[in-house]
Amino acid sequence: MSTKNLTSLFRPESVAVIGASNKEGRLGNLVMHNLLEAGFDGPIMPVNPKRQAVVDVLAYPDIGALPVVPDLAIICTPPAPVPGLIATLGKRGTGAAIVLTAGLHRVETDDGRTVKEAMLAEARKSGLRILGPNCLGLMVPGIRLNASFAHAQAHPGRISFASQSGAMCTAVLDWAREHEIGFSHFISLGDCADVDFGDTVDFLATNPGTTAILLYIEAVQDGRKFMSAFRAAARNKPVLVIKSGRVAEGAEAAASHTGALAGSDNVYDSAIRRAGILRVDDIDELFAAVETLARAKRMRGGRLAVMTNGGGIGVMAVDRLIAEGGHLAELSPETISQLDDVLPDTWSRANPVDIIGDAPGQRYSEALGILGAAKEIDAVLVMHAPTATASSTGAAAAVIEAVHGLRANVLTSWVGGEAVAPARKLFRDAGLPTYDTPGQAVAAFMHMTIISATKKR
Amino acid sequence: MSTKNLTSLFRPESVAVIGASNKEGRLGNLVMHNLLEAGFDGPIMPVNPKRQAVVDVLAYPDIGALPVVPDLAIICTPPAPVPGLIATLGKRGTGAAIVLTAGLHRVETDDGRTVKEAMLAEARKSGLRILGPNCLGLMVPGIRLNASFAHAQAHPGRISFASQSGAMCTAVLDWAREHEIGFSHFISLGDCADVDFGDTVDFLATNPGTTAILLYIEAVQDGRKFMSAFRAAARNKPVLVIKSGRVAEGAEAAASHTGALAGSDNVYDSAIRRAGILRVDDIDELFAAVETLARAKRMRGGRLAVMTNGGGIGVMAVDRLIAEGGHLAELSPETISQLDDVLPDTWSRANPVDIIGDAPGQRYSEALGILGAAKEIDAVLVMHAPTATASSTGAAAAVIEAVHGLRANVLTSWVGGEAVAPARKLFRDAGLPTYDTPGQAVAAFMHMTIISATKKR
Repeated sequence: MSTKNLTSLFRPESVAVIGASNKEGRLGNLVMHNLLEAGFDGPIMPVNPKRQAVVDVLAYPDIGALPVVPDLAIICTPPAPVPGLIATLGKRGTGAAIVLTAGLHRVETDDGRTVKEAMLAEARKSGLRILGPNCLGLMVPGIRLNASFAHAQAHPGRISFASQSGAMCTAVLDWAREHEIGFSHFISLGDCADVDFGDTVDFLATNPGTTAILLYIEAVQDGRKFMSAFRAAARNKPVLVIKSGRVAEGAEAAASHTGALAGSDNVYDSAIRRAGILRVDDIDELFAAVETLARAKRMRGGRLAVMTNGGGIGVMAVDRLIAEGGHLAELSPETISQLDDVLPDTWSRANPVDIIGDAPGQRYSEALGILGAAKEIDAVLVMHAPTATASSTGAAAAVIEAVHGLRANVLTSWVGGEAVAPARKLFRDAGLPTYDTPGQAVAAFMHMTIISATKKR
Repeated sequence: MSTKNLTSLFRPESVAVIGASNKEGRLGNLVMHNLLEAGFDGPIMPVNPKRQAVVDVLAYPDIGALPVVPDLAIICTPPAPVPGLIATLGKRGTGAAIVLTAGLHRVETDDGRTVKEAMLAEARKSGLRILGPNCLGLMVPGIRLNASFAHAQAHPGRISFASQSGAMCTAVLDWAREHEIGFSHFISLGDCADVDFGDTVDFLATNPGTTAILLYIEAVQDGRKFMSAFRAAARNKPVLVIKSGRVAEGAEAAASHTGALAGSDNVYDSAIRRAGILRVDDIDELFAAVETLARAKRMRGGRLAVMTNGGGIGVMAVDRLIAEGGHLAELSPETISQLDDVLPDTWSRANPVDIIGDAPGQRYSEALGILGAAKEIDAVLVMHAPTATASSTGAAAAVIEAVHGLRANVLTSWVGGEAVAPARKLFRDAGLPTYDTPGQAVAAFMHMTIISATKKR
């Protein structure tokens, strides 16, 4: 298949909206609003046979009347006309279409094929590529393209996310906006009738704006293509997969949802692992992974130091670390002696480093300076629980100050709710990875360790 | 030991603060402020030999000068004077003391004992009970008692929480405030020199204001007492335990933190399970459990229906449910036919019930009405991912409206960030349990199932 036409999909210079509408709540109206709000640089051309303008933009009665051949067409019509539209677009030279319409496999054409089959046959004639059908669309914030009917815009960033589930798209998008995390590409694949995970990963693997690839997979149609694309991509950059349908009941639900066979989970699991790809299990872990990929530096190794103002949360972090197969750094006598100079007598003198409940910002920054420079430590997880004797926000500010120039990677977890919210915001603004709980922070550390080890091979 | 004196600790009618201070940041100052701010009904009597008033309250030079024998004394002095203070308090008839002071086992008396040993010997003479030392103190919001130096007040509620770790106390407290969850008792046990988990659970098991008991345990000294108290309590009300030190490295950290032997995890695990107590593994799960215990109704059985506007998040919930050993309800033909009447043709016609991405509030309420009344269903997990075609907040309002009088338990999970925040707030205000992710919601459902099953035995 032609790479040129994937470029028409992911880097279009002109866009037509077939079935653009003035009626609020209609897909053709939501997409027009999203396109205009995002501020795409090329022409946005609505096609509507009955209206002279859609959302204040001059409309064209049909594809033939378009003054410019659109690189990308977004189709928001009912199922029946879709094959004819794809044929006309292909003949005019359009490279790609996003088909938002659902239910194409349930509607028949006059010759007894499904509308979906007829659409694919037409696309094959011209080489036009199709994203969808039954998808939410596509966002490329770097070129201000929001060709979707999502409820909100993605911020620009360096992670590319592709998902078979529209709900996972909007949930991740909504979470990422709250956490001020941006995306390079935000892709709803829908039914994957043409463009699939293999194509998408192929494109993203060599895309310089994408530093990490994140995928939500329910089922894969072409296993060989999937594997070769994934293996190649994982050599270039981190690839994280959340594959649902882990159990038979889930797989059944996934199959009824996408109409594709979800396949045996074991097959996927070993294939994913062989390709050097990290698999995460649930949405909490996915959110933690997004935070990590957006903000964390590449890891040097797997030895973690845990620094905390409360023993209990330190123990919880160690429990999780060891359960996941991670390694607690063993402090050298030099490091212990340096810490003796800055910490109260009652400090733990071991890892986890308990800097005691009344730790003010200065103690956080001094201890972090020592741990972050120690050669036996690859990463430091700095933790905090609220106290009345020292400021949670002040401790965060001190950590942000101390982090510059450190040898080790630094992750943070300010555990609580109300009192730690301003500190979490400070970390986000400073671009320092932060996690709500020790468990999430340790999961993220393990992701980074696995990703970094994979890339070294 | 006398139950009367545990009542002095948990239901005092008068309080003295030994070592009360006007110096900001000192324990004796923080405690005075917390006591006054909470609005305790009885006298709060500061003891300070050098000041006539502490935080505007008339101070007494020593215990002998107190006009009323305090039921409870809070000790904020350095270690050395503690044994003498306990002796004097015991002689005057005080029933209990909270010793906030840390490091008592590191300071020696003239006769070569540690201050901790001397303190316990004095307490034994009079039967005075001691909470701590090295603890954060105690809150009983129902009687407006905040005898702690925590950074914030607990809201009144029905859960009692006791923890060996002060950091876990403040982290849970801070989280609970954000989630508007209250407590019957909030107890920081510290070093457990005298009052331990056994005593605490004994008291809480028969306390009518406590509907559920939640414990963070690092190590237990008296295994037999612990087990008999726990077994008795678990017969009366749900008991949830988060036991850290699951792995050797964590246990070591816990031991160095509390100074007690953390013991083999396997021993605890089987003991906890034999007592009919639910063990949770990390702070995320603990938070989910707090939400459940505060808001969820007792469960009838273990068959869950999942209802969602997005297939993907439904599959994630099923994956987790089956992985945790839970059961997906099988919809009866009657239920399917009733749903056919209110849902679009494309609905999943199976559990998980996919009510389709454009589902407005009315569709949520109609489908929930049917599922919540079906005899094959014990609980319904209602889920939502943001869409542009329907309001997340409107869907939540419709669910809250529909939930009244339903046979089944209802749990909710509005997945995302910004766009779902108002819906989550609505659920909290309505007292309906809500969880950030499908994984947390399913974990909570499993907790409820296990707890309800345990209580039936």
